[in-house]
Amino acid sequence: MRMYDLIEKKKRNEVLTDEEIKFMISGYVNGEIPDYQMSSMLMAIWFNGMNDHETTELTKVMANSGDMIDLSAIEGKKVDKHSTGGVGDKTTLIVAPIVAACGGKVAKMSGRGLGHTGGTIDKLESIPGYRIALTREEFFNTVNKYGLSLIGQTGNIAPADKKIYALRDVTATVDCIPLIASSIMSKKLAAGSDCILLDVKTGSGAFMKTLDDSIKLAETMVAIGEGAGRRTVALITDMDTPLGFAIGNSLEVIESMDVLKGHGPKDLTEVSLQLAANMLYLCEKGSLEECKKLAEKSIADGSAFETFCKMVKAQGGDDSVLRDYDKFAKAPYQREILSDRNGFITKMDAESIGVTSVILGAGRETKESDIDFSAGLVIHKKYGDEIKTGESLATLYTSKENSLDEAERRYRLAIKIGNDQPKSEPLIYARVELDKIEKF
Amino acid sequence: MRMYDLIEKKKRNEVLTDEEIKFMISGYVNGEIPDYQMSSMLMAIWFNGMNDHETTELTKVMANSGDMIDLSAIEGKKVDKHSTGGVGDKTTLIVAPIVAACGGKVAKMSGRGLGHTGGTIDKLESIPGYRIALTREEFFNTVNKYGLSLIGQTGNIAPADKKIYALRDVTATVDCIPLIASSIMSKKLAAGSDCILLDVKTGSGAFMKTLDDSIKLAETMVAIGEGAGRRTVALITDMDTPLGFAIGNSLEVIESMDVLKGHGPKDLTEVSLQLAANMLYLCEKGSLEECKKLAEKSIADGSAFETFCKMVKAQGGDDSVLRDYDKFAKAPYQREILSDRNGFITKMDAESIGVTSVILGAGRETKESDIDFSAGLVIHKKYGDEIKTGESLATLYTSKENSLDEAERRYRLAIKIGNDQPKSEPLIYARVELDKIEKF
Repeated sequence: MRMYDLIEKKKRNEVLTDEEIKFMISGYVNGEIPDYQMSSMLMAIWFNGMNDHETTELTKVMANSGDMIDLSAIEGKKVDKHSTGGVGDKTTLIVAPIVAACGGKVAKMSGRGLGHTGGTIDKLESIPGYRIALTREEFFNTVNKYGLSLIGQTGNIAPADKKIYALRDVTATVDCIPLIASSIMSKKLAAGSDCILLDVKTGSGAFMKTLDDSIKLAETMVAIGEGAGRRTVALITDMDTPLGFAIGNSLEVIESMDVLKGHGPKDLTEVSLQLAANMLYLCEKGSLEECKKLAEKSIADGSAFETFCKMVKAQGGDDSVLRDYDKFAKAPYQREILSDRNGFITKMDAESIGVTSVILGAGRETKESDIDFSAGLVIHKKYGDEIKTGESLATLYTSKENSLDEAERRYRLAIKIGNDQPKSEPLIYARVELDKIEKF
Repeated sequence: MRMYDLIEKKKRNEVLTDEEIKFMISGYVNGEIPDYQMSSMLMAIWFNGMNDHETTELTKVMANSGDMIDLSAIEGKKVDKHSTGGVGDKTTLIVAPIVAACGGKVAKMSGRGLGHTGGTIDKLESIPGYRIALTREEFFNTVNKYGLSLIGQTGNIAPADKKIYALRDVTATVDCIPLIASSIMSKKLAAGSDCILLDVKTGSGAFMKTLDDSIKLAETMVAIGEGAGRRTVALITDMDTPLGFAIGNSLEVIESMDVLKGHGPKDLTEVSLQLAANMLYLCEKGSLEECKKLAEKSIADGSAFETFCKMVKAQGGDDSVLRDYDKFAKAPYQREILSDRNGFITKMDAESIGVTSVILGAGRETKESDIDFSAGLVIHKKYGDEIKTGESLATLYTSKENSLDEAERRYRLAIKIGNDQPKSEPLIYARVELDKIEKF
């Protein structure tokens, strides 16, 4: 078998066999196939795509290129969740304890943030003492005892994906649905859960800008998951506007705890309940409607919040900050961004707002950057809200006083104020199961 | 400027600017742009193509990446010729002396053969003593004195093309008309002639298998040549069947001399006269019809043959072999391939016949292979000819006795004998000038 012939085949829009995909990935990982042939193949895939069978096979081969985590020491159904990434997306902190409180098992490895999208692990590290690195035994014990454990990614997960992603990143082949889907799903398969809930973001702050593309990506990932024997469901959720009001690490932990205590922002609460309901559904805790009720109850009776506190404590964290937010480190500099006119917020560019939070110190510009856990911003007026001259649009928080001017400038560019109230957009656009798409 | 953005642009089917093409080629040649980005770009070009302006700019930039030969020391119009490569294509040996005898100037650098297609330089080296390496002064003097000089490629001609071609060769991006056209024309522009005649082969033995593709390639190359200020014409000629009867180096020199002496094969003579007439037309020696008559006269009066002999002598060659073919080294082993049935030759696979000659030692399998100048084959029955049981289809010549069985097997596979005489195919399918296509 020669890589040349496989490139030629894909270029001619023919289907690669399982053996050919194995040959290509193992050859690339072990260095027998050079970068320049793989990048040629990736561009041919960008143009001609891959069918569901090819994509599933590619995903499995990439998953099997490294450690395959065995979660069988954890009792019950393990459910994973993946978000395609957004600004202010703190739902993992909310849905994991809800699911655990209702009897599902969440043994989840998460990543750090890069660029304008935040990472769950960074948010958790803003809780004093929280350990993101557990031994395998500690990890399993925590899940068995409390129903959940959220840790950093460890081990050698899907190294083939890592190498291919790095190449895509410099050859303009990132934006390709079969390649995105196989990249995400290879890591989910290797992470070992029985079922997977996908939160595919759509809109200006998301990687997928259109609903059609988002649904196509969701369908592809669901087909891969089910093809590999994992029950998989996807929700398509809005990322035109950031989720909730808070962006920044400890700010988002605080807002998430508000949701678990029953007084969080409406949009964030609603999306979190839907995500949690679908995860419980995947864990076979009842119909979707029954699962939604279970989730709501776990907030109402405080069990979800208590479950989160127990996990934090078990992982060395100081859970008292979750009850008394004043104990979090405070950003020394604040600024209110005041509106200079009356009107309605008619546009929020989530990506630019994410960039604003990075300027304030809440995110990483490169992998090596340090994060300021207390930095970020709290939005006061969101899409559709009325605003009057002199009212605050948002509050900025930072340890770098000299970042405030640039951050304010960026924030003002990210929003538009118009005369008429715009029509409201749904929070959740669609739900995708195998061979079944519901649009809302 | 970043290569990443240029890949993205071409992927989106946008047009690259002149500056972007310059940046890309100079960056690749000097090593700033890695192979894996260039191969990604080449695949994007394979899918989305390049318009005539982009292709011309790419060609000029590649031509300018190395030496630009200055032929101004040679008086009169210099005309170059390029064949896209075929089996038994010895027309340069015939048309160059015809054009020179009629007052055109041919200062031509040629290449060696590789694989199943022969190279002019290998054919010339089968003439004892012939020097393919001349100093620039010797080269110019020979052309000024005799109207032609045929030498090997020297200097640093289009190094950008060389590097890009090597990458295309391993990334399945050779078969792309703008890339083929720019590769050929960059070398022609650098070689310095005022006008260029292109012989685009079409058919089973050619790179372009269909007439439509051949015409498209011809149009693209003509547009490039004219866009760079060189008068350019292309003929589309048949390469379903090898040209003439002889394949192999000294065998082809002998057949070419037969044409110059007025008793060569009809097909080879006709194609050569048309090529020569077009070259003379480009040198402004009259209308196409007048030029054809000039060419015919140079054969009839022996001036073309004498011109060739003078050049051979001037370049150290023994021209007596051209008058007495017995003086050529002879292959020690011969074999007749006899027909085992009556019928007509209904198919000849030129490429397989070329491969047969390589098996016999007439060509190179790799760049380092040695060539046996006396090896090759002479076809006795061509497409459309009647054949009877026991008659010879072809004679094989070699110094490697053990190659004969495999060569015979390959030759027999390359032809088909049927019951009915097939309809004849034209030798020349079309002629392409700027904005003008004539089909015959």
